[in-house]
Amino acid sequence: MPDQCVAGIDIGGTKIALAVADLEGRVLEKTRFPARTGERGPHAIIEEALAEIERMLGKTGAHLAAAGIGCGGPLDRKAGLILSPPNLPGWDEFPVVRIVEERLGVPALLDNDANAAALGEHRHGAGRGYKHLVYITQSTGIGGGVIVRGELVHGVYDGAGEVGHMTVLPDGPECGCGGRGCLEALCSGTALARRARARLAAGEASSLSSLSPNEVTGRAVAEAARAGDPVASRVWDEMIHYLAVGVGNLFNILAPEAVVIGGGVSEAGEQLFGPLRERVRARVRMLPPERINILQASLGGDSALHGAVILGQAARERRLEQTS
Amino acid sequence: MPDQCVAGIDIGGTKIALAVADLEGRVLEKTRFPARTGERGPHAIIEEALAEIERMLGKTGAHLAAAGIGCGGPLDRKAGLILSPPNLPGWDEFPVVRIVEERLGVPALLDNDANAAALGEHRHGAGRGYKHLVYITQSTGIGGGVIVRGELVHGVYDGAGEVGHMTVLPDGPECGCGGRGCLEALCSGTALARRARARLAAGEASSLSSLSPNEVTGRAVAEAARAGDPVASRVWDEMIHYLAVGVGNLFNILAPEAVVIGGGVSEAGEQLFGPLRERVRARVRMLPPERINILQASLGGDSALHGAVILGQAARERRLEQTS
Repeated sequence: MPDQCVAGIDIGGTKIALAVADLEGRVLEKTRFPARTGERGPHAIIEEALAEIERMLGKTGAHLAAAGIGCGGPLDRKAGLILSPPNLPGWDEFPVVRIVEERLGVPALLDNDANAAALGEHRHGAGRGYKHLVYITQSTGIGGGVIVRGELVHGVYDGAGEVGHMTVLPDGPECGCGGRGCLEALCSGTALARRARARLAAGEASSLSSLSPNEVTGRAVAEAARAGDPVASRVWDEMIHYLAVGVGNLFNILAPEAVVIGGGVSEAGEQLFGPLRERVRARVRMLPPERINILQASLGGDSALHGAVILGQAARERRLEQTS
Repeated sequence: MPDQCVAGIDIGGTKIALAVADLEGRVLEKTRFPARTGERGPHAIIEEALAEIERMLGKTGAHLAAAGIGCGGPLDRKAGLILSPPNLPGWDEFPVVRIVEERLGVPALLDNDANAAALGEHRHGAGRGYKHLVYITQSTGIGGGVIVRGELVHGVYDGAGEVGHMTVLPDGPECGCGGRGCLEALCSGTALARRARARLAAGEASSLSSLSPNEVTGRAVAEAARAGDPVASRVWDEMIHYLAVGVGNLFNILAPEAVVIGGGVSEAGEQLFGPLRERVRARVRMLPPERINILQASLGGDSALHGAVILGQAARERRLEQTS
């Protein structure tokens, strides 16, 4: 049993995931609970998370050294504030780092969940062994994280890694960001569902027609495409076309050792990755095809939770440096 | 007078530029001569360059410690080979590093000219003081270099920085790389000229109609646009539209402190940079407009030559590390 450990907190709009890990990042205990953001504010949710962490600490018997927190942006990473993410109504300038530090008595670090997931996959997942990679989460939205020489690139205003807002079709469909033709507006799970619904509304014949509109999800489109439905197949194929533009751009700009894709849509596995690899390889002429390495994330829904633990390790190391 | 110096060699398709600089990179002597690649092979050209360097060394009286070489790709940087660049016919697997090292008796380093220009602008030009920037050369082609935490990112197969082959219009015009809709195919000086010629051939009324087709260059389009010619203005405006897509993508992916643009087209100055800044700021919603910093290169045609000197400094430092 280790005598010291770190905690990881992954704050999502629907659920909160928690882990306690040893100093090498090996998870000793983990749990998750529904966020129920409609019923309660951030204080009550964080209170439940901290109580769960204390319960897990009791089971491991280890002493807590630090905590890491991943959360959807926007946030002020350096000030430790969560700034009204769209999926967390009421979390306005919420000082999550200060609250966790005061309540647990340890240093804490915050980063956005896509950066946390990039760290998780880099250290423990599909990106293990690479120093230079881009992580993409393809879920209800699209986010990402860029790792160069083994470290996250944050950029000015912590704005790096917003791969979901890369333009892949100028004057394309509107995006939630206010722009047009962003990768997210064409390739997220939400976009898959929206594009399928538009074809159904236009009267195209499809097995999806038997579903109510809100049952036409990204996952339903993936399944129907796999079963050979013509509308779903076309929507799926268009998604891969634009995703190949975006991923191809990442290879042309950064030539990473790997692009790792996680998130709900990526769970389609080879139905996504097979044609995606083929098209990116055809598109990127400046690299030999065998250097185009596109991998499915391997930590499932836990990429960001592992990343939160890594942020906790970094918080501990920073404290040690400050006190030495 | 310094007792030690480094040499920089910038090999282009039309001219060879040379510099001798002190160990801080201050240029003591520089010169250039026509490459005349049609008349002679790489050995004769390099021989002339080395003789010029020796002549400059004689003038400075300093002892040469190392040399740096910038050249258009493709090349094998680590092996020190130039691999048949399109603008250097006959330079097939040309071992430029070995020849320079043997002939001058000092260590040498090679990198592609866009990376060299990125180094030059980063250390001595518009990018001075920034640790995180992207350099773009917008000339007959479009190339680039990515600097993160003060160092060039080379990526796998040295493929990073190929910003000219980012897709900015899927299914757009053919590019020399074999792809379609690349930034280079829409925004290079060559693309400007081609797009203007196509409009003239379609019979659109323009002051450019009085020129012979090979006089319709990127520079002529810029000048006619500045004078208010409708065809040239439209072609110039479309170029800025697609350049804003590409530069916007760089901000979304990397959030650099600055994007620095050099090369012939960029010499149009505010005619380019004014509308470009405005459109990138409107396009990138994830960064506050004031953090979108787009600058004109400030070393004129000498960005890559300054970069070659920096490669020479790096060659010297590497040798010192190896022998210490």
